Amino acid sequence: MIRLYNARILTMRDNEPLFEGEIWVEDSRIVYVGETPAPLKAPEQGFEKEIDCEGNLLMPGFKNAHTHSAMTFLRSSADDMPLASWLNEQVFPYEAKLTPEDIYSLSRVAILEYLTSGITAAMEMYLTPVTIAKAFQDAGMRLVQVGGVNNFSQSPELLEEWYTGLNGKNALTSFELGFHAEYTCSHELIKKLADLAHKYKAPVFTHISETAGEVEGCIERYGMTPVAFLASEGMFDYGGAGYHLVHTTQDDIRIMKEKGISAVTNPGSNTKLASGIAPVGDYLRNGIMVGIGTDGPASNNCLDMFREMFLVTGLAKLREKDASAVPAADVLKMAASDGAKIMRIPDADCLAEGKLADIILLDLKQPNMQPINNIPCNIVYSGSKLNVMMTMVGGKVLYENRCGEQIFNVGEECAEIYRDAQRIRDRILG
Amino acid sequence: MIRLYNARILTMRDNEPLFEGEIWVEDSRIVYVGETPAPLKAPEQGFEKEIDCEGNLLMPGFKNAHTHSAMTFLRSSADDMPLASWLNEQVFPYEAKLTPEDIYSLSRVAILEYLTSGITAAMEMYLTPVTIAKAFQDAGMRLVQVGGVNNFSQSPELLEEWYTGLNGKNALTSFELGFHAEYTCSHELIKKLADLAHKYKAPVFTHISETAGEVEGCIERYGMTPVAFLASEGMFDYGGAGYHLVHTTQDDIRIMKEKGISAVTNPGSNTKLASGIAPVGDYLRNGIMVGIGTDGPASNNCLDMFREMFLVTGLAKLREKDASAVPAADVLKMAASDGAKIMRIPDADCLAEGKLADIILLDLKQPNMQPINNIPCNIVYSGSKLNVMMTMVGGKVLYENRCGEQIFNVGEECAEIYRDAQRIRDRILG
Repeated sequence: MIRLYNARILTMRDNEPLFEGEIWVEDSRIVYVGETPAPLKAPEQGFEKEIDCEGNLLMPGFKNAHTHSAMTFLRSSADDMPLASWLNEQVFPYEAKLTPEDIYSLSRVAILEYLTSGITAAMEMYLTPVTIAKAFQDAGMRLVQVGGVNNFSQSPELLEEWYTGLNGKNALTSFELGFHAEYTCSHELIKKLADLAHKYKAPVFTHISETAGEVEGCIERYGMTPVAFLASEGMFDYGGAGYHLVHTTQDDIRIMKEKGISAVTNPGSNTKLASGIAPVGDYLRNGIMVGIGTDGPASNNCLDMFREMFLVTGLAKLREKDASAVPAADVLKMAASDGAKIMRIPDADCLAEGKLADIILLDLKQPNMQPINNIPCNIVYSGSKLNVMMTMVGGKVLYENRCGEQIFNVGEECAEIYRDAQRIRDRILG
Repeated sequence: MIRLYNARILTMRDNEPLFEGEIWVEDSRIVYVGETPAPLKAPEQGFEKEIDCEGNLLMPGFKNAHTHSAMTFLRSSADDMPLASWLNEQVFPYEAKLTPEDIYSLSRVAILEYLTSGITAAMEMYLTPVTIAKAFQDAGMRLVQVGGVNNFSQSPELLEEWYTGLNGKNALTSFELGFHAEYTCSHELIKKLADLAHKYKAPVFTHISETAGEVEGCIERYGMTPVAFLASEGMFDYGGAGYHLVHTTQDDIRIMKEKGISAVTNPGSNTKLASGIAPVGDYLRNGIMVGIGTDGPASNNCLDMFREMFLVTGLAKLREKDASAVPAADVLKMAASDGAKIMRIPDADCLAEGKLADIILLDLKQPNMQPINNIPCNIVYSGSKLNVMMTMVGGKVLYENRCGEQIFNVGEECAEIYRDAQRIRDRILG
């Protein structure tokens, strides 16, 4: 059993205020969260490990609700380009050269970065789910994958195989139905995917309404917006979520509410690719659940939940011309709690007895947190990777940056992971 | 003499490409930048210090071209509010309670944060220039102050006293003419300030056109935009710079070019206060020099040049609906080089023999920099405080975060600086 003591604790359970106390972790779960002294008896043989948090903050880890981890190999290789030419000229041709083993290695670089940013789980869409699952399992990192079916890669048959084969095998990884996007799938393919959703009574996850051009194209093809079209095909009869959802109408929002479609916003990527600002404030006012994703490292380019959190609130403020739009508490709830619900890992949504021990320790003694006024606000508006002292997933400390050392505990040295990734990058990009 | 070797070097001198080599520093200046082995002879008694950069990146430090450092005490105390009510209800009443010694102590917290973000010089506007200069000098940090004269505090007489008294005394600190803003100064006061600019043939620095409301008010008062009005009063007959410059017209831009008025953009603050997106692309296309500022920690809330750099390009892309707008190389030039020119510390604009040794070392072995594709792009799009391994100002290492230790070398322990700031915050805000 591990004891984390002398901490400030933000449980994110309902609206529980921050308090001082400790957390006990047994195997992958939390067994106590509360004040010191704990009413429970310490284990007779003593704690396996006791971590003095020195007054710093324990909270649930961040959930990166949309990413393409292995795209690390394209990071900063094709910046300052619009989405369509970026995809067709700089992404698809190079992705065609990736092997499943490459994707294993490249995903591992992203996992290291997630850990430095306090991210404890990622919702992933990429090419080779089997090697991606292995990359996350080997590192000890939590993963929810979704299919990325489209006209050119994957298929409904493969999707079904993964859905039935990659669930229930490992406590860290799961798989959900998903496809790339309306604009990369034929009508026939979309019908088959909706059939799978009905067969398994399962939610579906996909990119929707990322750019204005995508929405226009869909209206030309089907006379409807992507949200309306996909819903009309029965795709979301068991819920799901849309990634991006930048260009939506009031009618789209009505449909999202009716069907239980959550929104995963990706402000870093939408900004860098000039896609636009998502109406996150409208989603919240209409009771739609919102999560936050970094998107892949080729379009963002970093995997940093602190940047994303600032952008979620900042861009909402600019869009609504209202500095009170989407306040910090709402953003923190998206990043730490609602992302878990959207990813269907509800046991990772807060710190409480019986919940998963996906916990981060944030350094309040860095200058960006001083003096202390309002800690939750400060995390959203001022937080940085430099504040992450520890990232624990399923009760295991995967990352530490404290007491004078940066340690990754992911089964392999960083230098090896970097070397593999560089070799792949050099082979493919030359 | 200090030797920094085994480094990648980005000098920011003209368009010099990145190369591998070393830098020698003597006292406050650079004496050699180039390949290894250096053609110079090493000092007979050996180097005072040799720093192995382990293949990481040396570049000029970032220039924070607009800030109000001591506002750390209000950080995260009044978020999610628009500018006018924020200023009148949450800032001015509390600022009235600050002593000059408080401002000394509160500025020191900001200096620590600048160092963690690779910022080597700040352009400051606040209440008590004498104690602010002392705070920066005691820490070894470079500072350019500007006056903040308005109807309620400071005066043309004080401004002149500081301008003549605070220059030429210390190699680290200087003082320029400045005032708070058109909307906080009477017409009579503005005339007196313009007279000073003429008397000293000096540039002037001030907040201009931060919000749409400010511009409307000025048009009501004088029938002109703030840029046009101030220029018509002769305020910028010797150049200067405007902070923010979010809401400007084509005519304003013509005047800026004619008068040599530079723009200091503050995207974090403009985003958080919902002020708008500055037309940075228009400034660049019209040959107007642009620098980047964090603004004060009460409106941003963090002092992080990495966040600001991403926002400068990201917001320009959104504003222009063009992913190629204001590319990374332009942003890096603003942050590291043009900021120095605007702040009138031209010897801090690049790494070259005879230039000031204001140098940072960025860690390329953090996961956000891997694999290596394009290093300058990656700094702008993916960089973080976690990448700052060393910040050197005037030849002195003020901050290190490497080899397993985070060390601030600013003449006092962080814990002491934090304690002072917290006491002041608690006294004033309760």
